[in-house]
Amino acid sequence: MLTRVLEYSRAVRQCHLDALFDLLRIPSISTLPAHEQDMEKAADWLLAYLRAMGLKRVQELPTEGFPVLYAEWLGAGPQAPTLLVYGHYDVQPVDPLDEWHTPPFDPTIVGSNLYCRGASDDKGQLFAVLAAIESWLSVSSRLPVNLKVLLEGEEEVLAPHLARVVWRDRELLATDAVLICDEAILDPQTPLIITGVRGNLYLELEVSGPAHDLHSGTFGGAVDNPFNVLVRLLAQIQDATTRRILIPGFYDSVLSLDDAERERLLQIPLTDEMACQVAGVPALAGEEGYTTLERAGVRPTFEIHGMPGGFTDPGHKTVIPARAAAKLSMRLVPDQDPQEITGLFEQYVRSFLPPTVQLTIHRLGSALPAVVDVKAPAVRAMAHAFELGFGAAPYYFRGGGSLPIVRHLQDALAAPVVLIGFGLPDDNSHAPNERLHLPNWHRGIETLVHYLAILGGQE
Amino acid sequence: MLTRVLEYSRAVRQCHLDALFDLLRIPSISTLPAHEQDMEKAADWLLAYLRAMGLKRVQELPTEGFPVLYAEWLGAGPQAPTLLVYGHYDVQPVDPLDEWHTPPFDPTIVGSNLYCRGASDDKGQLFAVLAAIESWLSVSSRLPVNLKVLLEGEEEVLAPHLARVVWRDRELLATDAVLICDEAILDPQTPLIITGVRGNLYLELEVSGPAHDLHSGTFGGAVDNPFNVLVRLLAQIQDATTRRILIPGFYDSVLSLDDAERERLLQIPLTDEMACQVAGVPALAGEEGYTTLERAGVRPTFEIHGMPGGFTDPGHKTVIPARAAAKLSMRLVPDQDPQEITGLFEQYVRSFLPPTVQLTIHRLGSALPAVVDVKAPAVRAMAHAFELGFGAAPYYFRGGGSLPIVRHLQDALAAPVVLIGFGLPDDNSHAPNERLHLPNWHRGIETLVHYLAILGGQE
Repeated sequence: MLTRVLEYSRAVRQCHLDALFDLLRIPSISTLPAHEQDMEKAADWLLAYLRAMGLKRVQELPTEGFPVLYAEWLGAGPQAPTLLVYGHYDVQPVDPLDEWHTPPFDPTIVGSNLYCRGASDDKGQLFAVLAAIESWLSVSSRLPVNLKVLLEGEEEVLAPHLARVVWRDRELLATDAVLICDEAILDPQTPLIITGVRGNLYLELEVSGPAHDLHSGTFGGAVDNPFNVLVRLLAQIQDATTRRILIPGFYDSVLSLDDAERERLLQIPLTDEMACQVAGVPALAGEEGYTTLERAGVRPTFEIHGMPGGFTDPGHKTVIPARAAAKLSMRLVPDQDPQEITGLFEQYVRSFLPPTVQLTIHRLGSALPAVVDVKAPAVRAMAHAFELGFGAAPYYFRGGGSLPIVRHLQDALAAPVVLIGFGLPDDNSHAPNERLHLPNWHRGIETLVHYLAILGGQE
Repeated sequence: MLTRVLEYSRAVRQCHLDALFDLLRIPSISTLPAHEQDMEKAADWLLAYLRAMGLKRVQELPTEGFPVLYAEWLGAGPQAPTLLVYGHYDVQPVDPLDEWHTPPFDPTIVGSNLYCRGASDDKGQLFAVLAAIESWLSVSSRLPVNLKVLLEGEEEVLAPHLARVVWRDRELLATDAVLICDEAILDPQTPLIITGVRGNLYLELEVSGPAHDLHSGTFGGAVDNPFNVLVRLLAQIQDATTRRILIPGFYDSVLSLDDAERERLLQIPLTDEMACQVAGVPALAGEEGYTTLERAGVRPTFEIHGMPGGFTDPGHKTVIPARAAAKLSMRLVPDQDPQEITGLFEQYVRSFLPPTVQLTIHRLGSALPAVVDVKAPAVRAMAHAFELGFGAAPYYFRGGGSLPIVRHLQDALAAPVVLIGFGLPDDNSHAPNERLHLPNWHRGIETLVHYLAILGGQE
């Protein structure tokens, strides 16, 4: 049966791709209010597709946010394990638009790559999972495992509502393992299993000075300029030389790497030269005393994403702006707690605040970090599936990104989370010209066909 | 005759105001390319008005920038002095638009104030001069002095072309004194004569890091974020405590205040409490060891106006931007030279630059500082005119803003520049809700009617 399912999945590739194109064309940008209707449209499209695949109890689970979708197929019997599949249908914004070579929501194949916002993160990868399931159901009218599907539309906005759904509906979602396919592998020959995700804390600092914008000729030199104050505050956060974050207590809860995990990280065949090339930087930089993989996955960070306020058009305007802001985030690692870090951050930043301005800290979102038990059977089964699908054993990698739901799924369902993906490091996810490497996608679908068989004891 | 001219100027106030409204309605924003046609429209409107006033040789002087307008009336005879009047018809941008209480180019009178972009800076003030001239010409068909008018449309973009015109056409423009009416007085009862302007140096710093935007999860911690680098560079420029600019050599050419001028500044009845209220700040701040008036007029500054780049929309996007920029300016004072300061600035900033990024410094404009000789007869005549028009002797004030042309007019024409105005410190020039205090404007017109008489020996 497995052979026939694999053959089928190859035969209908174009069909699966056409369906993915339909989903990609919906600009479901969850962070921009202008795209609210597109979020509904993407959810409706997926509900219809899940029904067409032959899944049961296809429905929206009650939530105050964008639709949470559920579907199941429980025909494998009580002896077979249950797998819960998670994915997200929302995507990142597309600015700066002028850097895209093709329209961001017009899926375009160039060579081996499919270009589109969401091609890799996560519509394309989510669709690899659906394609594997669809292949099993089409060929054999059944699956080797009991299956549950949980799809959300708020992953890119740090999932403010899904955790409540997972905890509330934990009986409905009860499972032996969770599969999340939203990550990258190292290169087309080198699969990875992700052994952890970083948390995140996204803040906006707003410094208010004058009651209104002032002329920098009339008042310049006699009042504090909110931007001048803000850059001084921000410059206090990270050491210019060691790149250490200087907030007292910031590292207190950070777990040290154990020797086994450090060893696994060292085995990953990723050189700094390769990292430079993928990132497009002349030289890497990061916290003193750590390797690149440790800096990007195991250690916390501080990043400024943009600084709204004042005059930013072409030309020059000599204004002392009434307000200056900074959008920033800190990736957190076990056992840092976003709430506690917010407090430490605020206390530290306020200690540098002059009496000439007011500081407001807006908390825009947060996510908990998580680590994955590499010895869980569902993780071992995935290692085996990768060997069959990619012809190579996976490396074990600590992911630098955040998947807020991982920790909640682990805790609420008491199940291991298998965290994988078929993206590539240069997929430009969250950037212009996001793309999906199609040969990877095909191998990914076959890996997942194998995975269902292995997990169900049918291989 | 003077009495009749004054009476006439009062009788036709509405008529002058109607004409000013027409000029104000033209959105002549010189720094925004979208308003190029409006610049031509404002110039054409003024050419027609100068002709209708009865001025001669009304024309555009050749220039590569927005039109430079010239007009003259030389009928006072060779014994009478010549006065060159300067003004500008361009205005600042209007963002943030949502902070305006009335449409920025729809002149609206509320109580004693006229609200409109350009109401004070400089269309309203320029029009006070034209109204005084028009009053003399209408009543007596002549002026007490020989008059030349020079109007430009690039004052708000640091006048890149006018200096060349002034030096080239210095014979045409030859004069005994220059009058510029583009400043503020302290309050409606307290006129000022401005004894200097600061120079300016407007730069844009651009830090480039990754070749393209990166996901802060995947790469965060392992590459330098251009914004993180930029805020550290900017924080090096000004001391957080003393507010001194830390660029080596920056203050080397700054002239100390002489005792007479310090004394004149101390006489100005402006308290820090008043300055706080006008600026709308909880507390003033500035360079250690100087008074507020010295900080705002006699000392150089460093101001950040805006920081383009990255993600600045509502919501959150976790991007490491490929580029981060800062628009900034330094007000300069005699004898600082913008060219020399640019070199010192660049050398200093580059000394902090890590090898992970590239820095480009765009020079967006510069202006020379100038001081005015308070003993010149044309300045003394203005003090007398203020006593008659406002019923109060003026104070002598060092202006903090930049009027690039002052120094060129002084040097090219070898003539003293009389620098005054009828604006107020809270006119919101360069900010939303710019306004003109109409009682001031009326007194200003009468002051200028007197000034022409005094200068021509007819009072």
